[in-house]
Amino acid sequence: MSSAEEIAKAAKAAFEASQLVSSEERVAALYAIKRELEAKKSSILDANREDLQAARLEVDAGRMSESMLKRLDLGKQDKWDSMLQGVLDVAAMPDPTGKVGYATELDDGLELYRVSCPIGVLLVIFESRPEVVVNIATLAIKSGNAAILKGGKESMRTAVLLADAITSGLAKTNLPPTYIQTIQTRDEVSSLLSLDRYIDLVIPRGSNALVKNIQNNTRIPVMGHSDGLCSVFLDESADEQKAVRVVVDSKVDYPSACNAAETLIVHQSLVTTLWPIVAKALISKKVKLLCDQPTYSPLSSILDTETLKTYVQPSTAEDYTTEHLSLTLSIITLPSLATAIQWINSHSSHHTDSIVTENEANASVFCNGVDSAGVFVNASTRFADGFRYGFGTEVGISTGRIHARGPVGLEGLVTYKYKMRSVVSGGHVAGEFGSGGKQFKHKPIETSFVPF
Amino acid sequence: MSSAEEIAKAAKAAFEASQLVSSEERVAALYAIKRELEAKKSSILDANREDLQAARLEVDAGRMSESMLKRLDLGKQDKWDSMLQGVLDVAAMPDPTGKVGYATELDDGLELYRVSCPIGVLLVIFESRPEVVVNIATLAIKSGNAAILKGGKESMRTAVLLADAITSGLAKTNLPPTYIQTIQTRDEVSSLLSLDRYIDLVIPRGSNALVKNIQNNTRIPVMGHSDGLCSVFLDESADEQKAVRVVVDSKVDYPSACNAAETLIVHQSLVTTLWPIVAKALISKKVKLLCDQPTYSPLSSILDTETLKTYVQPSTAEDYTTEHLSLTLSIITLPSLATAIQWINSHSSHHTDSIVTENEANASVFCNGVDSAGVFVNASTRFADGFRYGFGTEVGISTGRIHARGPVGLEGLVTYKYKMRSVVSGGHVAGEFGSGGKQFKHKPIETSFVPF
Repeated sequence: MSSAEEIAKAAKAAFEASQLVSSEERVAALYAIKRELEAKKSSILDANREDLQAARLEVDAGRMSESMLKRLDLGKQDKWDSMLQGVLDVAAMPDPTGKVGYATELDDGLELYRVSCPIGVLLVIFESRPEVVVNIATLAIKSGNAAILKGGKESMRTAVLLADAITSGLAKTNLPPTYIQTIQTRDEVSSLLSLDRYIDLVIPRGSNALVKNIQNNTRIPVMGHSDGLCSVFLDESADEQKAVRVVVDSKVDYPSACNAAETLIVHQSLVTTLWPIVAKALISKKVKLLCDQPTYSPLSSILDTETLKTYVQPSTAEDYTTEHLSLTLSIITLPSLATAIQWINSHSSHHTDSIVTENEANASVFCNGVDSAGVFVNASTRFADGFRYGFGTEVGISTGRIHARGPVGLEGLVTYKYKMRSVVSGGHVAGEFGSGGKQFKHKPIETSFVPF
Repeated sequence: MSSAEEIAKAAKAAFEASQLVSSEERVAALYAIKRELEAKKSSILDANREDLQAARLEVDAGRMSESMLKRLDLGKQDKWDSMLQGVLDVAAMPDPTGKVGYATELDDGLELYRVSCPIGVLLVIFESRPEVVVNIATLAIKSGNAAILKGGKESMRTAVLLADAITSGLAKTNLPPTYIQTIQTRDEVSSLLSLDRYIDLVIPRGSNALVKNIQNNTRIPVMGHSDGLCSVFLDESADEQKAVRVVVDSKVDYPSACNAAETLIVHQSLVTTLWPIVAKALISKKVKLLCDQPTYSPLSSILDTETLKTYVQPSTAEDYTTEHLSLTLSIITLPSLATAIQWINSHSSHHTDSIVTENEANASVFCNGVDSAGVFVNASTRFADGFRYGFGTEVGISTGRIHARGPVGLEGLVTYKYKMRSVVSGGHVAGEFGSGGKQFKHKPIETSFVPF
């Protein structure tokens, strides 16, 4: 048996064994893990400094970006404390399992309950930030799933010790120590992707290319977290203050986030009125504007040559399908709400799109017509986030539309099963129902839990 | 552009256009389709007779089974009327879209709603029964999804005319005529599987091999409907009457269904007491028993030689992973509830498993420990069915655990989107929240619909 198969098999066995462990015990495991992390703090931060030193060499050699190096640092500011607080926050959240979504009496004494339950074994693949090991392990344990985690090789020294702390914490509970496992190599990922018998869901968080590559190489369901090509549409009736505030915030609040806007769509009636005002506000925040001809022209006559040259340039077709992740915004002019909706549906990544409008009917048409996970009215695209939505924490923002869409909280890590029981003498058999026989009652049962 | 790409692109365009069409209009389309089917009844049944004649030649040549030929027949008994009644039943069901699952006020005047909506474009691949074209088209239209349907080649003449009737019906409404399209060849399926830009979900209904083959060849999410390796476990405390009724019904009510039992697990304490009684009841229904040694022995001493020879034989390891789909049942003896749960988790297809027990604690452990879509107590596995569960109708029984699990009704054909609106002066921007700024309120909103 390959090492990957042993890992996968151990994960499945751990998952199955854990089904008879109580929700309280899972919460106790989170506290045990937090205590282990605290006890091992100095050795973990030592390992993190080694990862940082190695990364510094890579940055100096031009093989790694400075921003990636920054993401590795577990010692800076309150990052360590936030990580531990995150464990406590998740521990305190409501249990996502055991919730009844449908309950009906099929016949006198024959009860059916649809109840939320864990999915099984998760394979989570993510990039450099080492604390994600703890974040994801915490979410998996809280939701009752076993998990196999693969982080970036840049943070390996740190991740190994974080994983050790998790294993030590689990060892102090009734949960199997193989409930959370970490792997280090791409080869292991590749082997695991063929083990659909043991692994139930793959969650890749990273580039579009990473997600597509995984989708192409497995028959396990994939919940991808990849690019965000978000847009803001300035409708004919847009209010000036709202337009400026929403567009600027969507672009500049955190340009490298997937929920930052990459495209601004301007209704053609606004190109000489509202548009120059919004453009000036963006330029004052150092945003570079990639304009189509109708939005370029008015700026060329009102901006000084230097500003125009520095901040404004004609757009290319490619700009409208590029995730800039920087202070750069593509601008396009369209003649109507309908064409804006069509344009968004064919160009956006169906992540989050916002309309600025004073027209309620147009707001409604936009929200129904735009096929994206988030459709906002007079609000920044930056609100698309699990914490902001009120989920306490998030697995990530799913760019798929099956199972979970948009920001994914603990609810996205559960599925459901149907529990049925007969409580009458003789039990229940199907052959007694149907033409000439008994009829199904389908009488709703009012309950939030399964009584057995 | 390939023909498959044209079909997929037309489907996506139809889906997007349909998002602004009301739910009432979709219901009107169902009535229009029913009228078209009625008007074309004689030509459709003529085509069906041609399909049947061609199939008869295949059966005579030994290339098709008699049961497949039977499934092709749209003229027999009340099949035609049932098909039309099914259209009316689905039309009358509650709209699965527009339902609010989560609503919260993030800040004064900033409202968030998670609302159910169609998935997009479905690619549904199924086997011979021609009426499935109408069933699936009806479900897709009701739930607001565009669909591309591929049936079996055996029913092609019938399916083409059924599809014509659907297209004619759609043409009398505001829904695009390409909302429901049918394709005929495997090559087209193969091309469509690469078009994840246009197709959002593949639903294959058929063999395990078909489902796995599709999962291996696409990065589009797959909701598979394949094999059912269901089992019944006779716990130590099983009641005799319940045991006999549940086991016999699970096996003989409809042996070729995916929810029929294929394995009986006998607690070892019952091999000389309850087991022979259950065995005799099964044999009286002409069920062939494939027994392990502990269940074979007692039968060899109490059955006459002829009966033993005809109905009982030693099992092989392979029998326990075989979907018999006939009056054949594999029997295994296990020493405990815990081993029975482990055995089911490693051998069953996670479809539906039932326990016969008088012990409530054991019932609860079984239902939590068995990782299947359906876990039943003293009830036949045959109850695992969308109609019986109260969904009115079903897409099929999903053997996956992501998005929808077990019998899938209209609810399995929707996803959700997040709608957000700011109703205050200036709109809402994210930069004002966080440390030193505003805090999120997350105040639940009590509503069942989105007000915009």
